[in-house]
Amino acid sequence: MKKPVILITNDDGYNAPGIKRLIALMTTIGDVIVVAPDGPRSGQSNALTVTRPIGFSPIETSPNLKIYSCTGTPTDCVKLALNDILDQKPDLLVSGINHGSNAAINVIYSGTMGATLEACGNSVPAIGFSICDHGVNADFSFFEKYILNITEQTLKNGLPHGVCLNVNAPNGALKGVRVVRQADGFWAEEFEKRRHPFGNQDYYWLTGYFHNNEPNAKDTDEWALAHGFVSIVPTKIDMTAHEHIKRIAEWDFREAE
Amino acid sequence: MKKPVILITNDDGYNAPGIKRLIALMTTIGDVIVVAPDGPRSGQSNALTVTRPIGFSPIETSPNLKIYSCTGTPTDCVKLALNDILDQKPDLLVSGINHGSNAAINVIYSGTMGATLEACGNSVPAIGFSICDHGVNADFSFFEKYILNITEQTLKNGLPHGVCLNVNAPNGALKGVRVVRQADGFWAEEFEKRRHPFGNQDYYWLTGYFHNNEPNAKDTDEWALAHGFVSIVPTKIDMTAHEHIKRIAEWDFREAE
Repeated sequence: MKKPVILITNDDGYNAPGIKRLIALMTTIGDVIVVAPDGPRSGQSNALTVTRPIGFSPIETSPNLKIYSCTGTPTDCVKLALNDILDQKPDLLVSGINHGSNAAINVIYSGTMGATLEACGNSVPAIGFSICDHGVNADFSFFEKYILNITEQTLKNGLPHGVCLNVNAPNGALKGVRVVRQADGFWAEEFEKRRHPFGNQDYYWLTGYFHNNEPNAKDTDEWALAHGFVSIVPTKIDMTAHEHIKRIAEWDFREAE
Repeated sequence: MKKPVILITNDDGYNAPGIKRLIALMTTIGDVIVVAPDGPRSGQSNALTVTRPIGFSPIETSPNLKIYSCTGTPTDCVKLALNDILDQKPDLLVSGINHGSNAAINVIYSGTMGATLEACGNSVPAIGFSICDHGVNADFSFFEKYILNITEQTLKNGLPHGVCLNVNAPNGALKGVRVVRQADGFWAEEFEKRRHPFGNQDYYWLTGYFHNNEPNAKDTDEWALAHGFVSIVPTKIDMTAHEHIKRIAEWDFREAE
């Protein structure tokens, strides 16, 4: 049987421990092409590079593994791979393993999920993998068999049009898988202020903590993660609030019309 | 009656014609605070600045209009405004007027909509306004009464939790408003390759065209825009594909568990 062609990217750069682990896992099941940023691109969401050109360089070329580093964002990496580097559409994109949670509202900021959504929008089945540990020494060992299983299930079952998977794992031993929804919450107290040593201007570092609006909702990713489960959120490109179209269409737009 | 406090941002920079027009409109109905990037940030999506600090500088201070320029992304601007610049939660955020369409899949790349989603995630009613014309000389005159009407209707009716509005207008005379869903489509042939004058490396400029998968679907933003209507898409933070949770939960995860 022909091996699947698997495209890999991330937002921590091609040299991060998480992507190295993901590459090691994916080469056991497919032919792997890596197109990943040349350095950290955390919090890059679906950002595109539009004010300057981008480029890519080969890092490694062996029979079933090619690695390219790219000067752009995670989304740029996927676009460049699909348009110019690959000579066929891949069977799958996997992004990660991200060092840090992409659960709940983090999905909208995440470069890992930006790349995943980009592949999804181009009709490539796509999975973002993240672990709730920012450290470079994050322990992926408990997560690995889940990553292989979820990847194999995705290759076998396929994904609906416009839908990808946002997969997160807590640190440490794991109890199983929960297919859940994105929890409702927000980031609070987000900046630390510092005084510039040679001027009047203050400057600000992004920081803060995540506030979960529904910590007891068992059908959410945050609940699953807090209770030792791997969370899978089917995530879609269509951001329309379909359930509110009718009511908003009843607003009074006559003054403009 | 107390005037509403309106926060304004964009992704083209505080000096762009589109935001100047939006400021002029909003000062007719509220007290306005502008926190906008110090230069172009197109295609910045919900990107955050995490690898360096950010800052802001006052540009204008008058009784009902304060303008700050910020070194960060559109999303950073909203976070900084809500956390450190404003002394109260604003009644509304408006973002734009963007020079260029943010309909269909563009919503996931758009800095204008990134800022709008950021406010929405912080429970501030929020609207992104865009016109389908990239030029600096874009003619906003037909759009203006719609912007005022939609803003006033939003202030009057409020928006559901986690839902904001993505409003786009075609060029020229307008026929009215359509409340619609995000069209399904993708960008094709996305890069132009150039040869570096002093090296072997090629470099790539992001370009391409939008391919609409459903040009005849009258309930979409692309259809509305192509037929002379202002499109309003209620857009939500929750990207969960709720309708697919049950089916994916039936996959075989036993091998990992």
